[in-house]
Amino acid sequence: MPAFAKRMKTMEGSAAIIRGLFGSMGDPGVISFGGGAPAREALPVDIVREIANDVIRVGGRGVEALQYGGVMGLPDLREVVVSDLLAPKGVIADAANILITSGGLEGMNLLCQLFIDPGDVILVESPTFVHCVEIFEMFQARCISVAMDENGMIPEDLEDKIKKHSPKMVYLIPTFHNPTGRTLSLDRRKRIAELGSRYDTIILEDDPYRDIRYSGSDLLPIKAFDTTGHTVLANSFSKIFSPGSRLGYVLASDEITAKLFDAKTATNSHTSMLPQVICAEFFKRGFYPSHHKMICDLYRERRDTMIRSIDSFFPKGTKRTFPDGGLFTWAQIPGGINTTALLAESLADPDVRVAFVAGEGFFIEGNGMGNNCMRISFGSVAPEKIMIGAERLGSLISSKIGKQEDQ
Amino acid sequence: MPAFAKRMKTMEGSAAIIRGLFGSMGDPGVISFGGGAPAREALPVDIVREIANDVIRVGGRGVEALQYGGVMGLPDLREVVVSDLLAPKGVIADAANILITSGGLEGMNLLCQLFIDPGDVILVESPTFVHCVEIFEMFQARCISVAMDENGMIPEDLEDKIKKHSPKMVYLIPTFHNPTGRTLSLDRRKRIAELGSRYDTIILEDDPYRDIRYSGSDLLPIKAFDTTGHTVLANSFSKIFSPGSRLGYVLASDEITAKLFDAKTATNSHTSMLPQVICAEFFKRGFYPSHHKMICDLYRERRDTMIRSIDSFFPKGTKRTFPDGGLFTWAQIPGGINTTALLAESLADPDVRVAFVAGEGFFIEGNGMGNNCMRISFGSVAPEKIMIGAERLGSLISSKIGKQEDQ
Repeated sequence: MPAFAKRMKTMEGSAAIIRGLFGSMGDPGVISFGGGAPAREALPVDIVREIANDVIRVGGRGVEALQYGGVMGLPDLREVVVSDLLAPKGVIADAANILITSGGLEGMNLLCQLFIDPGDVILVESPTFVHCVEIFEMFQARCISVAMDENGMIPEDLEDKIKKHSPKMVYLIPTFHNPTGRTLSLDRRKRIAELGSRYDTIILEDDPYRDIRYSGSDLLPIKAFDTTGHTVLANSFSKIFSPGSRLGYVLASDEITAKLFDAKTATNSHTSMLPQVICAEFFKRGFYPSHHKMICDLYRERRDTMIRSIDSFFPKGTKRTFPDGGLFTWAQIPGGINTTALLAESLADPDVRVAFVAGEGFFIEGNGMGNNCMRISFGSVAPEKIMIGAERLGSLISSKIGKQEDQ
Repeated sequence: MPAFAKRMKTMEGSAAIIRGLFGSMGDPGVISFGGGAPAREALPVDIVREIANDVIRVGGRGVEALQYGGVMGLPDLREVVVSDLLAPKGVIADAANILITSGGLEGMNLLCQLFIDPGDVILVESPTFVHCVEIFEMFQARCISVAMDENGMIPEDLEDKIKKHSPKMVYLIPTFHNPTGRTLSLDRRKRIAELGSRYDTIILEDDPYRDIRYSGSDLLPIKAFDTTGHTVLANSFSKIFSPGSRLGYVLASDEITAKLFDAKTATNSHTSMLPQVICAEFFKRGFYPSHHKMICDLYRERRDTMIRSIDSFFPKGTKRTFPDGGLFTWAQIPGGINTTALLAESLADPDVRVAFVAGEGFFIEGNGMGNNCMRISFGSVAPEKIMIGAERLGSLISSKIGKQEDQ
């Protein structure tokens, strides 16, 4: 067999982590706080059937849904993004600057196509979303981490790293961050947009969770503070409509949008039309507001249950975040317990069988950082199972700490 | 703005051609032999609605269609590929070696991710499909052309070019080739598979038209002669189900499939589930055989009408191919007429207004080759309009030759 391209080598580490994540999902005997999937109850199955039944007709939108479409995406879905998703959040945009992507992640892939040559630096949060690191490594970028605190990426450290490494791009998840659930504060959003402009660096704002907020008030996206076109906003319909539909969007400057057209053409021509038509109708027919309220109510209860359960059942000394939205909390456990080993033990123990994602994989530092942390997802588990799972996991952790103390 | 990546520069030429193609489509006042889209009458609109109405339910396949799916694609769609599309064509495959892609083109993109470093050589047919050249150029490959005759790529020239250039990959469309409509002969298929094995080169067999044959007999794919895993078969559901759904598949060896998993993950996680579920049901419920007969009957009449009309209305000295399937014929016109100029004239002349694709853009040589040729698509135009369009275009060409003779 001929040699694989160099990029297949540089992505091997993160690809192995991702394959591990996929591997541990889906066992029905396990209570899973692992994956980041929405609840099945949050999927608008009946609405999709109703819309399909109504519009997939000759003379309706049937031909449009099945025939080739435009590279940039369905015009009325791009209008929906502008009017229903961006304007209410304080972002004034033109549909001409919206590209519909095949899921939110494709936005990161396309931005790499546009900007990343091998060896270019991308700055990422510490910890960050490992799936995007895999993309960055496929493009042979050098990822360098920027410190976070409870208010998100720290602008002072970002500026230092920009000066030191001249990155092509800064990648961050400012709202209900994956994996920590933290939210970047408003003044930092403004400062980070300014740093992008001042140092001529792309700020790639990945914001898939912003629309599922359960407490607190909306913050303007970084993009709202961008005066030079250096910030690119990538978002997804996965959390508010359906992840399996693989629909997302990118908002970018005219210059970047023109290049995105070419990169999207050479990736897969355009995003699937059938989900685009149905998603556009979902918004245009007014299903979104009540669906949105339903899912936020659902997830709020699960978040509150998870936080209460962690506080009740995890040992003293556990630190966890309180996310105002999204799907994750992040816990740091005491006693020097390695969460990768803990996960293996939890899955193997018939009295526990609770999954989570071990923290280590989210840190690109690779020096053991985060090995006492875990990402805990509450979105796809019913409240009664959240309590049971947290109790079992908390007991396992406590028993290990107890054993340490006995020794 | 930071500098774009080098690949955005190398793809500029072909990207401009592609943008030009998209730009000339869709004007309702024009009879278009231009695009390669299937006929709207060939789209299974009512079947898709019926299936959606039946399966998009909680307790049916509704959750599956809207939730995250597996990277490799929907298991039963991969089984359909094996049992309904490959086995009847003489290819014995395992569903584990099938990756569902977001349209056929994504297969070429993913194979480039796997194998192409900047500067690597890809051998292509002369002429070839410009959309794939755009992909290859995005990966900074060096494309070098291999001669064709009426039986497809010429193995002797291929072997010479392999020896000279040590290509990573050979890209070809063996059946009802785009743009020429030609089909690679059986003995050449066998020889090309062997050349891939002997010289350790990937043979990328792009075969989206093979399932729409209107005359003659099926030929085994190149992949059927592959004994070493060097041939990769890419195909699409665009011509037999729906292009807008963006569904395709790749059949590859275990080793390549494992890497495709990683590249697909880092491109867009997986292909949209809703179209996958509906397409799988389309086959499993037995809709395909009668739908397939309907579209082949439709296209056969259009092909026959187009061939008759060219023979009647185009000037003496015109050469054209007789495609046994697919959507294109390829005409070389006499009199030294430049088809790029002819297209502009045809669109501007209110008595003509017929679109086609000028031949030049399909040749990577860039030395004027093919500038007296045109790709003529017959799939999406009704027979009566085919006759009118061919008569108008033939008259325009004849009038230009007449003027030359007058001078």
